[in-house]
Formats: sequence, structure tokens, C-alpha cells
Amino acid sequence: MGTGYLDQLKQEAFEVNMGIVRERLVVLTWGNASSLDRSNGVFAIKPSGVSYSLLNWQDMVLVDLDGNVIDSKLKPSSDTSTHLEIYRGFNSVGGIVHTHSPWATIWAQASKSIPVLGTTHSDHFKGDVPCLPYLNKDKVDSAYEKQTGIQIVDFFEEKNLDPFHMPGCLLSGHASFTWGETSQKAFENAVALEACAHMAYFSIILNNEINFPTYILDKHFTRKHGKNSYYGQNSNRV
Amino acid sequence: MGTGYLDQLKQEAFEVNMGIVRERLVVLTWGNASSLDRSNGVFAIKPSGVSYSLLNWQDMVLVDLDGNVIDSKLKPSSDTSTHLEIYRGFNSVGGIVHTHSPWATIWAQASKSIPVLGTTHSDHFKGDVPCLPYLNKDKVDSAYEKQTGIQIVDFFEEKNLDPFHMPGCLLSGHASFTWGETSQKAFENAVALEACAHMAYFSIILNNEINFPTYILDKHFTRKHGKNSYYGQNSNRV
Amino acid sequence: MGTGYLDQLKQEAFEVNMGIVRERLVVLTWGNASSLDRSNGVFAIKPSGVSYSLLNWQDMVLVDLDGNVIDSKLKPSSDTSTHLEIYRGFNSVGGIVHTHSPWATIWAQASKSIPVLGTTHSDHFKGDVPCLPYLNKDKVDSAYEKQTGIQIVDFFEEKNLDPFHMPGCLLSGHASFTWGETSQKAFENAVALEACAHMAYFSIILNNEINFPTYILDKHFTRKHGKNSYYGQNSNRV
Amino acid sequence: MGTGYLDQLKQEAFEVNMGIVRERLVVLTWGNASSLDRSNGVFAIKPSGVSYSLLNWQDMVLVDLDGNVIDSKLKPSSDTSTHLEIYRGFNSVGGIVHTHSPWATIWAQASKSIPVLGTTHSDHFKGDVPCLPYLNKDKVDSAYEKQTGIQIVDFFEEKNLDPFHMPGCLLSGHASFTWGETSQKAFENAVALEACAHMAYFSIILNNEINFPTYILDKHFTRKHGKNSYYGQNSNRV
Repeated sequence: MGTGYLDQLKQEAFEVNMGIVRERLVVLTWGNASSLDRSNGVFAIKPSGVSYSLLNWQDMVLVDLDGNVIDSKLKPSSDTSTHLEIYRGFNSVGGIVHTHSPWATIWAQASKSIPVLGTTHSDHFKGDVPCLPYLNKDKVDSAYEKQTGIQIVDFFEEKNLDPFHMPGCLLSGHASFTWGETSQKAFENAVALEACAHMAYFSIILNNEINFPTYILDKHFTRKHGKNSYYGQNSNRV
Repeated sequence: MGTGYLDQLKQEAFEVNMGIVRERLVVLTWGNASSLDRSNGVFAIKPSGVSYSLLNWQDMVLVDLDGNVIDSKLKPSSDTSTHLEIYRGFNSVGGIVHTHSPWATIWAQASKSIPVLGTTHSDHFKGDVPCLPYLNKDKVDSAYEKQTGIQIVDFFEEKNLDPFHMPGCLLSGHASFTWGETSQKAFENAVALEACAHMAYFSIILNNEINFPTYILDKHFTRKHGKNSYYGQNSNRV
Repeated sequence: MGTGYLDQLKQEAFEVNMGIVRERLVVLTWGNASSLDRSNGVFAIKPSGVSYSLLNWQDMVLVDLDGNVIDSKLKPSSDTSTHLEIYRGFNSVGGIVHTHSPWATIWAQASKSIPVLGTTHSDHFKGDVPCLPYLNKDKVDSAYEKQTGIQIVDFFEEKNLDPFHMPGCLLSGHASFTWGETSQKAFENAVALEACAHMAYFSIILNNEINFPTYILDKHFTRKHGKNSYYGQNSNRV
Repeated sequence: MGTGYLDQLKQEAFEVNMGIVRERLVVLTWGNASSLDRSNGVFAIKPSGVSYSLLNWQDMVLVDLDGNVIDSKLKPSSDTSTHLEIYRGFNSVGGIVHTHSPWATIWAQASKSIPVLGTTHSDHFKGDVPCLPYLNKDKVDSAYEKQTGIQIVDFFEEKNLDPFHMPGCLLSGHASFTWGETSQKAFENAVALEACAHMAYFSIILNNEINFPTYILDKHFTRKHGKNSYYGQNSNRV
């Protein structure tokens, strides 16, 4: 097998990295995205601290699932170990996006989960988007980024959350991660998370007793996901 | 009669679909617009789930007023049945816009109508923009999109609201619909709804006892609408 | 004397009309600007209800200070009588801008003056930007736009406000007007009003007992205005 | 030595002056940036009151550390004396940015320091960004801009703050200054300050008892700064 697929992987990761800037989810270098080829055990990720205005697709850094950098003189994102733990812990995840997008980060800084209040949210996240607690001092001081990834995977396991029903989370005092079957899906979930974080913020101020019915949440989620989905051109049902 | 008018209908619908993205009323694929040729009983609507960045006017899907797709391999918007019911229920409506624009959706998620507080609102909506209640479980589980359209038409009839005096509404836990004699007017009402939703939100926080006089509301609405209108180049009166 | 100055007047008015759209003070057709040549008693103003995307400088409508349209097939802005009364009442004003810019309008809808809380505001407005009361029913029903202009001029006279120290105001339930020696200055004041309206809104929520010292207000206003100004390349003092 | 370095200095200052407009930290002429060549004791700064749309790099004004204008017919920024005092007081600072960016100014108008609530803030500012008190009347009336610079330097000395651990501050009733080893770093800190000001505002409304752990603050600051930093391509540690 040739290595053309590695170039394609870099291009996919590049597209999503540029997308999060274009959608104003990222300023300066506050974000990174990766794209995984699980069959080959390799993902492409943004290089650390490189300005988005100077980025080329060739700059994406290839990393294997043991965390070894393949074929690059650039250092990968400082958050690479977090991506790695998520890829290891969540089977079938093919792309990850990390941003400090303002409204998601506002909730994360307040250590609050984002409540599901409407169909926009339900189309992407089947319930409240959880905010994980502050990482403890030992974990921060030892292997911070790796521990962040482990915290996410452990939290989902403990709470029995399906990472495809809840393709993202907040980290207290930090920011957000989203993921999906592909990096494109992870990107769409990052856009959705920011929009829902913004709208939820102001809806709860306007009405602090919102009772969004579970049957509408379920309807909207299953309209777009699973075997009975009928949204989009490639859905299973007409 | 030739079918050139069908191409024109698709182009009209396309322009409005792109307009709602350009005006930032829509991110991802959270919105759709349609344009109706009532004399021929056909409307053009966005295809379901197709990315706006890939959309061409030729992709618009033609649907007749019985809900049959005419001449397209693409599936129409998942909200097509809602459009259909509005066209059936509201005579003279020639265009419909559905968006999850942030501020309109913030009010919808809070299940609150948008109060009329000024002339900007009065130029487009003659009174508070109503927020309809959550659809019940039976309706959501049976024919959700069709029931949404029926709910809108029934609500306006029940409340004795003229759809041209109130060319839009909110749906609890969901988002907004606007309409007009043409798809262009429906678009302008969608832009106006979002701006008014934004301004009303912050005005009521600053002053929770606003008493906007009805005579200013009436003055502004009739300045732009009806036989004594004098706004614009084609108004009836100078 | 030739009529080249009339073309120049139209171009000036056009530039400012496009500027308020570019700076996002205006959506749809919610705004208009005019530029006056006082020596010839003629001003150029936006035509009524014409989409900004279709506007050319040649479309600007020339109106004399008696309110007669000169040389145009287009109707002038529906707010022309307001501009006219301001030009008549405020000597030396050479340009006027009317917008429904969101934050200024939020204060206007709440019937609240914008308090001076900092140097940004002080550079343009020497004190709180006043919000005038709702116009009464008789005035709205008779000659609404003309009465709006008269209200502004009367208010400034009654409160002994210098229109160059306070080059703008809010109208309850409506929006804002700003002015200046030139239409360019009126434009800059419109931009400043919107920015100051936005910042004041959130500053007073954060601290409802702000005591911005008058001596800083005076310092900043006189730094930019009057015989001892020293800001900019053409100021009187180095 | 040739004077090519002076052209380069002007170009650096120009880039940052345009950057703060592009990032929407500045409207009208409400901001200015400078770049210092400390070895030659010369800095380049924006000319006073010149519209950003007309600015060329050649317009940057060269000023020496005694405050003398070198080689320009244009007057330097009215805030030049503030820049000068900061360069004199803070060794190793090589660039300064002053803006009235909206959210930083909202805090400054409220006379409140911006609390550190998360990692975004910690990456740039090691603790709360302080808001200095209103300058007193004597200082405002005598040498306002110079006194502003002196106030900043004195405050940092008095509070024992390292200007590279806290590369910026707010001024009550006014706006913000940021700085850095280079004008590019000063620019990045200005962007960070605005984003953090925005997010902190809404986080504290959502949760007024946020307890962001000091060990995460320290971790993030040292990840990017100092001898053990490992963020970016040129950091000291892998």
C-alpha cells in the first residue's frame, strides 16, 4: 500500500483545523484538530503553536497510536496525548476537535454542564453536555495532557455515556473537546456545541424553569442518527 | 407554457437559502427556505442536509402542493411538510424561511413570545411575535413535521391573527418560521425577527416596564404596509 | 457655478450610507444618511427603501432646505423631514446619520439615556447621550417624521445642550440620530454611539455604582474638540 | 550601521497596528501600537488620529526614548508619552498595544480587575489582570498621558508584579494596555485580554463562586513561559 493515504489524512486534518478558525471557534492558536486512520493506526494533528495564518496541510504531524511522531520535523500539538487517549478509549472515533470557543469555554469556566433546551442541541447531543470536574493536582503535575484524555474516557465509562450519543464534553476551568466518526463530524459537533452553549446561556436567564420534553429530544436525535434516521441525502429511511 | 419558470423558482429559492447563511441566520445546515409559484402549485426548496458551501440553484427540489417531489434525485428538506402545511393554510404566502437563528431560538427555547418594544419590530410584525407551545408527544411521534405546520396554521386561526400582519412565529424548544408574499419578503422578515429578538432581549433586562405605545406600533406598521403605506419607491402614497 | 458640487455631495452622502452598512450599524434598509451643502441650501439623502446592495451614488436624492426634491425620480428617505428639521434647527450641522444600530436601539427601546462611563464616550459625547420621550399621539398621527425632528431641536434648546458637545440622541421606542459638521463626522459619531451603547450596557451590570470623574470626561472631550485640542494631525495645538 | 532597521521597525509597528483593527479590537482610531528597538533607543508608533484605512507603514512615527520625534512630518499618537514611560519603566519590553477593545473596556469602565477563571487566561496572564484606579485630577490636568504611563509602572512596582507574568492592565474609566518582548507578543496579549475579558464576564454571571485552582494556573503559564516551557516549536523542552 502506498502512502497517498497519509497525505489525504493530513489534508483532512488541515481542512478541519482551518474550519475551526473560519467559524471563529479559535483565535490565536487556541485549538487543534486531528484526523485518524484507524486501520493504519495513524492520526494527523496540528503542529504545536504554529500560527494558523502560516499553516499548510504538509505541516500536519503524523502520530501513531503509541504516541510516536512519524515523518515530521515539527512537534505535534501540546494536546496530542489527550487526542491519543480519546482515540484509544473510544472505539470508532475518527476525528477530534479541541477549541477554546467562547461560549463553550464560558460554561467550562463556570464548571457547569450545558443543559439541552431545544432541537438544535438534540440534533447533535442526546442530553446535557457534561462538564467534567477540575483535574486534581497530582494529575496536572504529572502527565497533564494524558490525564485529561484519561479523565474523559473514564468519565464516559463511569456515567455509562455512549460517545456517539454525546460526542463532546467540557473540562472545568479549561475548554471543550468534541469528536465523531470522522474529523468532519467532530468539526460539526464543535460548531454545534458553541452555538448551543451560546443559546442555552441566554435562554436560561430568560426562563430558569425550562422543561424541554424528552420526547422531542429523542425525536430530533433519532431523526439524524441511527437506523431510522431520515435527515440528509444518505440517511437510511425516506 | 415552458418550464423556464421552474428554473426561476429554483433560483429564487436558492438566493434566499444563500441569503440566510450570508446574514448569519444559519450555521451548518440549520435552516431552509422555499419559494412558491402558487398559480402552478409548485414550490422549490432546499435539499435535505446538503452543505450550503456545495449548494447550487439546480439542487433545489421542486415539490407540488400535494407533497410530491417533481424532477429531482435529491430528497427535499426534512421540514418540507411544514412548508407545505403553511402554504396550504395561509393563502397568498409565496415564500417561507425556517432558521435556528440564535436570538429567535433563544426566545423559542425559553418558550416566550418576543414583545414589541419599538419601531424596528413594528415595521415588520404588528404586535408580539408569538411563541407556540411544545407539540404534544402523539404529534411528535406520528407526523412531526406535518403537525408542526398544522399547529402554526391552527394557532393563527384560533388567535385570529392575520399571517401578513404577523409574518412569523416561534416554536417552543425549536426555532422560528417566517413567511411573506414572496420568498424575498420571508427572508427580510427572518432578518428582522433575529434583530428584534436580539434587541428585545437586552431592552427588557434594562427596563422591565417598557410601555411601547400602540399608536407608534400602528403608525410604523401602516407606514410600510397596506393602502396608505408611503415607505419605499413603490408604495401607494407619496 | 457648475453643478459638480452636487455630484460631490451625492458621493459624500453615498459613502456614509455605505459606511453604516459596512460597520454593521444597518441591516436591511434600517438607516439613512445625508450630507448638506449649507451655502447652497441643498442636501443629498438616501432614496426610500432602496436595498443597499443596489445603491449607486447617483441614486442619492437632492433636497433643498424647504423640503423640495431637486433632480431625481426617486423618492427620498421617509425620514427626510427629520433630517430637514435638524438642519434647520442646528446651525453648522453638515451631515446626519440615522440608524437602528442594535445597542443604541436597545437603550432607546428601554427609554434610557446612555451614561458616560469612560474616555471612549467622552471623546465624542460630553455627557450622557439623552433619550427623548415617546412622541405623543397627535404628533405621530399628523406629521410624524417632521415632528421627530422638531422634538430633537426643541429638546436640545430646552435642556440648553450644544449639538456639537452632544452630537446625537436616542428616541424612545425608536432608534438613534447622530450629526456633525460633516457627514463623515456624523458617521464617526454613529459608530462611537453604538460602541459606547454596547460597553455601557455591560459595564453598569458589572458595577451599578460607577462614578466616572467629570475631570476625565472634560479632559478627553477637550483633547479632541475646541481651540486647545491636540489630538490628530490638524489639531490646534502640539 | 544603515537605517534599514528603522524601516523594519516601522513595518513591525504597522503590522501590529493593522492587526488590532483586523481582530476587531479597534474601531475608528481608538488604539495604537508601537515597536521598540531598544539597542538603538528608538520606537515606531502610529501617527495621531490617522484613519486606519489610509495608513501606510511609512506613516509610522519614529520617537526616541527621550520623546523626540525623529524623521517624520506627522505627529505621533497622542498616547506616545504613555508608551514612553512603559518602555522606560519595564526593561525588556519591546512592544506595546493600546486598545479600547469592547470587553476589556467594559471591565475598565466598571473599575474591576479581570479574574483568572481558566486556562485561556493562564496561558497569557499569571493571575487577575489588574484594573488601576482613576488617575487623580492633578495628574489628568497636568501631563495626562505621561502620568498614565507612570501610574502603570508605579503600580506594578508597588504590587511587586512582574510585567512579563502580567503583560497588561486596565485603567479605570479608560481602556487597556498590553505589552511583550516584541510588538507581536504585545498584540497576542491584546487579543488574549479581549477574549478573556469576554469569557470572564459571562462565566461569573453563571457562577459567582468559581474556584479556579492555582495549580492549573501555574501549570498553564509555565507550559508556555520560562525555562521549562514545552508549548510551540521553539520551546525549551520537548
